Amino acid sequence: MDDSMLPKYVKIVEVGPRDGLQNEKQPIETTDKIALVNALADAGLQVIESGSFVNPKWVPQMAGSEAVFAGIQRKAGVSYAALTPNMKGFERALEAGATEVAIFAAASEAFSQKNINCSIAESIERFAPIMEAARASNVPVRGYVSCIAGCPYEGAIAPAKVADVSQQLFDAGCYEISLGDTIGTGTPAQIEQVIDAVTRSLPVNKLALHAHDTYGQALANIYRALQLGVSVFDSSVAGLGGCPYAKGASGNVATEDLIYLLDGLGIEHGVDLQAVVDAGQRMCDLLGRSNNSKVARALLAKCRVD
Amino acid sequence: MDDSMLPKYVKIVEVGPRDGLQNEKQPIETTDKIALVNALADAGLQVIESGSFVNPKWVPQMAGSEAVFAGIQRKAGVSYAALTPNMKGFERALEAGATEVAIFAAASEAFSQKNINCSIAESIERFAPIMEAARASNVPVRGYVSCIAGCPYEGAIAPAKVADVSQQLFDAGCYEISLGDTIGTGTPAQIEQVIDAVTRSLPVNKLALHAHDTYGQALANIYRALQLGVSVFDSSVAGLGGCPYAKGASGNVATEDLIYLLDGLGIEHGVDLQAVVDAGQRMCDLLGRSNNSKVARALLAKCRVD
Repeated sequence: MDDSMLPKYVKIVEVGPRDGLQNEKQPIETTDKIALVNALADAGLQVIESGSFVNPKWVPQMAGSEAVFAGIQRKAGVSYAALTPNMKGFERALEAGATEVAIFAAASEAFSQKNINCSIAESIERFAPIMEAARASNVPVRGYVSCIAGCPYEGAIAPAKVADVSQQLFDAGCYEISLGDTIGTGTPAQIEQVIDAVTRSLPVNKLALHAHDTYGQALANIYRALQLGVSVFDSSVAGLGGCPYAKGASGNVATEDLIYLLDGLGIEHGVDLQAVVDAGQRMCDLLGRSNNSKVARALLAKCRVD
Repeated sequence: MDDSMLPKYVKIVEVGPRDGLQNEKQPIETTDKIALVNALADAGLQVIESGSFVNPKWVPQMAGSEAVFAGIQRKAGVSYAALTPNMKGFERALEAGATEVAIFAAASEAFSQKNINCSIAESIERFAPIMEAARASNVPVRGYVSCIAGCPYEGAIAPAKVADVSQQLFDAGCYEISLGDTIGTGTPAQIEQVIDAVTRSLPVNKLALHAHDTYGQALANIYRALQLGVSVFDSSVAGLGGCPYAKGASGNVATEDLIYLLDGLGIEHGVDLQAVVDAGQRMCDLLGRSNNSKVARALLAKCRVD
C-alpha cells in the first residue's frame, strides 16, 4: 500500500463565503463578506464561492450577493463563483460578474423534494436553460451532487445513484462534479465505493469531493479520495457553516485542516495557511463563535512551546 | 490501492479515565471516575487505563487511583491498566489490583528531560526493576513512546529514533508498544514513515497508535495505520483531555470517532458506540465542558432527521 500515486497538486475550492456563511445564524455585513473574500484571494485560494443568487426569502444570509460581487477586488487568476438555482439566479450572477456558477442536484429523491421541491430528473431538466445560457456566455458551470454517502431523510444512498446523477450533470455540460457528503456520515470505504462507481463513466480529474466533518471523518475521507486520484476538494475557512441537520454539530471541513493535511503529504496547493487562519479567525470574532478548525485553534494557541 | 488488507478486528485501548482526566482542570470525584470506568467496561471496552500511580504532588488529578481501582466492578475479560513511572508506582498499582501496567519513554531527548527529568537512556534503565518485578508477578507491561511525529521542544523527530526507543522497550519486555503522536502534528505520510521504521525490527502486531487530534489529523493517521496493518489504537471517550501544550486545542482522538470510522470500514471492535457516547456525555456534564467527539455531538443532536 504505497502513496507514491497521490496527486502532486490539489485545487482547493473555498466555499466559506457561501456554503459556510449561509448556515450561520448571525447577520453579517456586506463589507465583512467582501473583506473575507478578498483575504481568501490574497491567501492564494483560486476558486472562491462568493455568494448565492437564490431567492433571499429562502436564504436571507445571501441577500447581499450582488453587493458582495460588486465590492470584491478582483484578483487575476481567481475565479469568483456563485450558486445559481434557476435562470433568474443565473442572470443575476452573470450581471454581478460571477466568473463561474454552480448548480446543484441530489443523489436522494427525498432530499431533492424537501430541498428544492422537485424530483432529481426535474431538477436536471430545470438546469437546461442555465447550461445553454452559460455556454453562450462562456461561463463554466460546476455541478454539485448532494447526499452522496447518506441522506437525512432516506438514509443510505446507492453509489450507482450518485454515478447516475453525476453522469447527467456532466453530460449536461458541467466541467466538474463536486460530490457532497452533505451530512458527513461517509467513511473512507463508502467514499471509495462512490468514487469507484462514478469513475466507471467519468474521468477522476473531473471530480471534486465536498466533505463535511459532522462525524469527524472528513480528512480520512479526503485522504482516501487522494489515494484514488481525486485532486479537487471543497472546504470552508474556519469550518464556517455547521450542519443544518444537527444543531451544534460540524459542517464543512475546515480549509485550514485540509491545507495542513496536504502540506504533510507534500502536495502543493498554493495557499498560505497562516493567512487563511487569520481570515477565518477574524470572521469567527465577528460572528462571536468558536473556530471550527482544529489547526486554527492549535496554531492560535501556539501549540509549539517556543 | 485497495483496502482488502485492513485488519478484521481492532483492539481499542481506552485512555480517557487516565490520560484524559489527568489533563482536565476540574476536580473529579472518585465515585465519578469509578462510574466512568464501569460504564466503559459495560460498553465493551476490553482495555481501560483506569489510573496512574505517579506522585500526586505532580499529578493531583490522579491522586485517588487506589480508590478507583478498589471501587470498580471487575468485569471478566477486561484489563484495568495503570501508568507506573517508577518502582514505587508499580508496587502501588500491583497492590491496587491493576491487571496491566504502562511505562513511558520519549523519542525526544528534550521532551524526556522536561517531562521526566532524565535522558531517554536513563528512563529505560529506570524501568528495568519494574520489568523484572512485572515478570515475577506475571503482569503485562505496555510501553508508550511519546513524540513520535514531533516534539513541542525539538520539533521534528527522526523515525529512526522512534524505532530505536521502541526496540529498547520491546527488548526490555513490553508486550506492546504504543506510538504516541503527543502533540498531534503528524500526518499520514509521517505516520507511514514511523511505522515503516519501527516495523523494520518489530512485528506490526506488537504496535499501537496513540493519536492526538490537535491538528484534526487523528482519523486520517489511524486510517493510514490500518492500511499498514496496525490493529491497536488508543483513544479517549469524548476526547477527554486536551493538549497541555495548547490551551483550548484538542488532545486524544475521541473513542466515539474512532468507533464510527471502524464501523464504516466493517472492522470489528466489540464496543457499543451509543453506550460510549452516553458515558462520555455524562462525564462532560460533570466537568461542565463541551464534548470533544464530533460523533457524540452529531448523535446527541440527532443529526438524522427522523
